[in-house]
Amino acid sequence: MKDFIWNVDTKILFGKDFLKDLPKEIKKHGDRVLITYGGGSIKKIGLYDKVVKILEDANIFYKELGGIEPNPRVKSAREGVEIVRGNDLNFILAIGGGSVIDLSKLIAAATFVEADPWKVVIGEEKIKKALPIGTILTLAATGSEMDAGGVITNPDTKQKLGFGSPILKPKFSILNPETTYSVNEKHTVAGVADIMSHTMENYFTLGDDAYLQNRMAEAILKTCIHYGPIALEEPENYEARSNIMWASSWAINGLLKTGKSTNWSVHPMEHELSAFYDITHGIGLAILTPRFLKYILDDDTVDMIRDFGINVFDIKPTDDKFLDAKKAIGALHQFFESDLHIPMTLEEVGIDDEHLEEMAKRAAEHAGGTIKGVKELNADDVLKIYKDSLF
Amino acid sequence: MKDFIWNVDTKILFGKDFLKDLPKEIKKHGDRVLITYGGGSIKKIGLYDKVVKILEDANIFYKELGGIEPNPRVKSAREGVEIVRGNDLNFILAIGGGSVIDLSKLIAAATFVEADPWKVVIGEEKIKKALPIGTILTLAATGSEMDAGGVITNPDTKQKLGFGSPILKPKFSILNPETTYSVNEKHTVAGVADIMSHTMENYFTLGDDAYLQNRMAEAILKTCIHYGPIALEEPENYEARSNIMWASSWAINGLLKTGKSTNWSVHPMEHELSAFYDITHGIGLAILTPRFLKYILDDDTVDMIRDFGINVFDIKPTDDKFLDAKKAIGALHQFFESDLHIPMTLEEVGIDDEHLEEMAKRAAEHAGGTIKGVKELNADDVLKIYKDSLF
Repeated sequence: MKDFIWNVDTKILFGKDFLKDLPKEIKKHGDRVLITYGGGSIKKIGLYDKVVKILEDANIFYKELGGIEPNPRVKSAREGVEIVRGNDLNFILAIGGGSVIDLSKLIAAATFVEADPWKVVIGEEKIKKALPIGTILTLAATGSEMDAGGVITNPDTKQKLGFGSPILKPKFSILNPETTYSVNEKHTVAGVADIMSHTMENYFTLGDDAYLQNRMAEAILKTCIHYGPIALEEPENYEARSNIMWASSWAINGLLKTGKSTNWSVHPMEHELSAFYDITHGIGLAILTPRFLKYILDDDTVDMIRDFGINVFDIKPTDDKFLDAKKAIGALHQFFESDLHIPMTLEEVGIDDEHLEEMAKRAAEHAGGTIKGVKELNADDVLKIYKDSLF
Repeated sequence: MKDFIWNVDTKILFGKDFLKDLPKEIKKHGDRVLITYGGGSIKKIGLYDKVVKILEDANIFYKELGGIEPNPRVKSAREGVEIVRGNDLNFILAIGGGSVIDLSKLIAAATFVEADPWKVVIGEEKIKKALPIGTILTLAATGSEMDAGGVITNPDTKQKLGFGSPILKPKFSILNPETTYSVNEKHTVAGVADIMSHTMENYFTLGDDAYLQNRMAEAILKTCIHYGPIALEEPENYEARSNIMWASSWAINGLLKTGKSTNWSVHPMEHELSAFYDITHGIGLAILTPRFLKYILDDDTVDMIRDFGINVFDIKPTDDKFLDAKKAIGALHQFFESDLHIPMTLEEVGIDDEHLEEMAKRAAEHAGGTIKGVKELNADDVLKIYKDSLF
């Protein structure tokens, strides 16, 4: 196990009845609030009205930034920074899923930077200070409610890139599984695939002796496999929604990577797909992951992938390790396709071979020349994985 | 899943090389330090000298309280409070295992109380304020390095009782698995049994739909089962020591009980054994747990115990649920006895039937009349479990 520091201090208020604690939690950190949200679903489910009433009853001053897109764009951060500066705001309350929270993190950091917010994303401006953030989560997927990072898209440059700093971790997050009842089928399964992908990015590593962390990862994967199809069938099943929601936070809050060298592989490949085609991130991850595993299957990785099949999908081990590993990859593909009804080819989500080469080149470039995950991947490797994912 | 709040902000510095960070971490919280430790093993392994040199090089003022016993006594807390008050100390650095850390928590709280520290333990004095604590952990067992509670013994009243408050969570804990290399066989296996018991106390509940948390619990149990025997055979196996050490923190830091109603059963029964006989806590837990499970096995609990056997010990399920559950209990007993070489009868640890009735009565009394765990146990139930554990 490698040396590490664990220091996650986000306070989680999980359940049906914590909205009432909002003023108390906000007032620990600020009193002039920027509320951020997305396309209006929080208005449809009545959450917006509830939050606004609670803030008004508590005499908390607030301004709003709505309309934050999925694959959130840097221009929303520019708007947010202006509102914060123009009104002397000192706290951000993000109401939504990962996109809203990620964008809010960028506003929090960019407020203290002279340059354009995009300079923060690309790392030209260091994050030294940030506004405190609280979140009310409405989608179980990205884990942004309990982690230090975000992912922002710049359509002008066709870039979708991650950024982060420990000071961006939310001070508190309110997780009410009922707020995810209205999440549609597509975003429910994309969320489950996203959680599983975060888990697998942390799980598939070699030689780190992090047995506990790998069993923890399997616990999260089993939870997704058990409850994903139930949430799809019964959107208002509290047991399913609550287990998936709590799993989303733990897949990426840092526990699974403690003691390990984790460099992610599938996310950098997927980010190019959604930067170019604006597809749903979780769907892209589901399509790429089985092809990625097939591509890296070799003498080094066969035991790792085989163990995944045995421990997560109850594959019966045989004497043929490679056969077992292939069965594991097949089981994952099958789960996404048959149990979660995810379109499992790039063609089905509207991606053809036109930009594959450019995307592959950029994926490698953005990762510093090659993607240095469990197996190092150059642009040519990425292209092969993309091509295998087409049909 | 039940509503819950998760808020664990202890910073963990895990690995071989974090002692150097000690001054920086202490200075965030205080500058006049009480060092606490036990019977001197930290001097034998050279840790004491290292810490003292680091503090002196950093010009940090310190006083000492050594000689804290296993099953720590309230009198040490009295001494500690006097040293703190007499020297205007404002930080406690606990170097040791759970006993030293638990006792330090009591000093931290009792410093701000007029009355005797024992009043804090029995709840007559509320914990409203506490000195900040940091720890350097030398034994993987109690999880006190990342939790909010402690257990203190009062030999005058033959009481061993728990106390706690969120403000007692350590600010930081330095976990170096190498410091556990010198832990002898008895305390290595007692530690593993303690970790497993914490996990099982959180795991064995009914009807809470906390699937994720139960899979997490199984991850910890599997880690103990895998590495316990290895640590016994090869005390300097870093992989084993590090996995067990990290498991110790997660067994009891609160994650496993999120969303669940957990009232512990075996700990209150064991505390009477160590209060009366001063036996090693983990050994007492190992002896009692299989008898407890056998005693509560019925139509309500059979599936829960059977799942434990299937998921943790790879028991092959049959049509006879009760048989499977009994196999699970047998596998646990066998693991403690054959793999960890734990003496698995009360007789072997010097306990006969002389005080069984009195201890059973007190166990129920201290739990408020009955032990309200997964099955409610009165004094008579406890007595039967004790008697079954004799030989």
